[in-house]
Amino acid sequence: MPFSSKIIEQAVEAFTGLPGVGRKTALRYVLHVIKQQEAEAHQLSDLIIKLKNDLKFCNICHNISEQHTCEICANPSRSNALICVVQDYRDVLAIESTGLYKGLYHVLGGLISPIEGVGPANLNISSLLQRLTADTQEVILALNATMEGETTSFYISRKLANADIHISTIARGIAVGEELQYADEVTLGRSITNRVPLDTVLKRT
Amino acid sequence: MPFSSKIIEQAVEAFTGLPGVGRKTALRYVLHVIKQQEAEAHQLSDLIIKLKNDLKFCNICHNISEQHTCEICANPSRSNALICVVQDYRDVLAIESTGLYKGLYHVLGGLISPIEGVGPANLNISSLLQRLTADTQEVILALNATMEGETTSFYISRKLANADIHISTIARGIAVGEELQYADEVTLGRSITNRVPLDTVLKRT
Repeated sequence: MPFSSKIIEQAVEAFTGLPGVGRKTALRYVLHVIKQQEAEAHQLSDLIIKLKNDLKFCNICHNISEQHTCEICANPSRSNALICVVQDYRDVLAIESTGLYKGLYHVLGGLISPIEGVGPANLNISSLLQRLTADTQEVILALNATMEGETTSFYISRKLANADIHISTIARGIAVGEELQYADEVTLGRSITNRVPLDTVLKRT
Repeated sequence: MPFSSKIIEQAVEAFTGLPGVGRKTALRYVLHVIKQQEAEAHQLSDLIIKLKNDLKFCNICHNISEQHTCEICANPSRSNALICVVQDYRDVLAIESTGLYKGLYHVLGGLISPIEGVGPANLNISSLLQRLTADTQEVILALNATMEGETTSFYISRKLANADIHISTIARGIAVGEELQYADEVTLGRSITNRVPLDTVLKRT
């Protein structure tokens, strides 16, 4: 469908650059912006520029930050004995929102995926190996339980094999509130293999 | 989930202003913009401003236009005997892409919807009545076959009742390529009631 205006054509094109946005959705956004209050449109426009100009990646953990060193890395009350390796910024937010983790993070910026052409060199893995110090006691691999996540976990664990560091991964199992009969077999199988003594669970909660 | 940066918070807020975008999708857009090439982000930002500044609504038919009078209204080869009333710009695009309509349009900017608080006064209905001239022979109501669309069609047809103008509505029926057994009863019923002589169909195609 050709648009009657070149500006609409270009704007639709620009919006389709956003993840998961096709031409129909982009046109919906464009029509909304045209009808929007001028102040709102200016704000959205300004914030897109701000996102590019004012945000950086932390030079220690590669988390998104307004400073060169992010708030978590700069916080002296966080334990530098623990480094939790995650895929991206959203995972940091998710773990932070539990309020149960007091160590540091390391954001990979993706997962190893030969299909998408992402190799170890495209991820922040070498900087993880460089930042390990005598203080580092444990690296927690908190990656997705997908083919790519498991491959990346395996790759990092091999790289860390020679270092005198404990490597762990987050527990896979039945979600709290989930019913056993609806769980998939792999998850249920892992939750039986990696069963934990009842008193440790009771103590924690 | 609180974000670590105020800019991210504000940008997520701004993106949720777009139709159908929740906080999760907005955050996906924000993270995409942060990782995007600087030129791409600037382009999106600039085009949002351009959409507001350079586009107007045609002062005759209320279609979106770069000029005060849109290309369709300004085109002398289009017949001013026909006015096709549509809900919004997307409907104009859809009808134009058929290449079968050579008249003018009138964009209402919405449909009468008491639930959403949209009354006749909020739509471009009075300007439709004002633009009718001695040349106007027919007004085609091409509105959605929904409760709101039918209500709006009925309202406009009542307003035009006293004018010496032929009022028509687009044909409702079985879509080309659709199988009868899957059609809903109302559509099938209407397609039987409004059946057309076979030779007119053959002549047209």
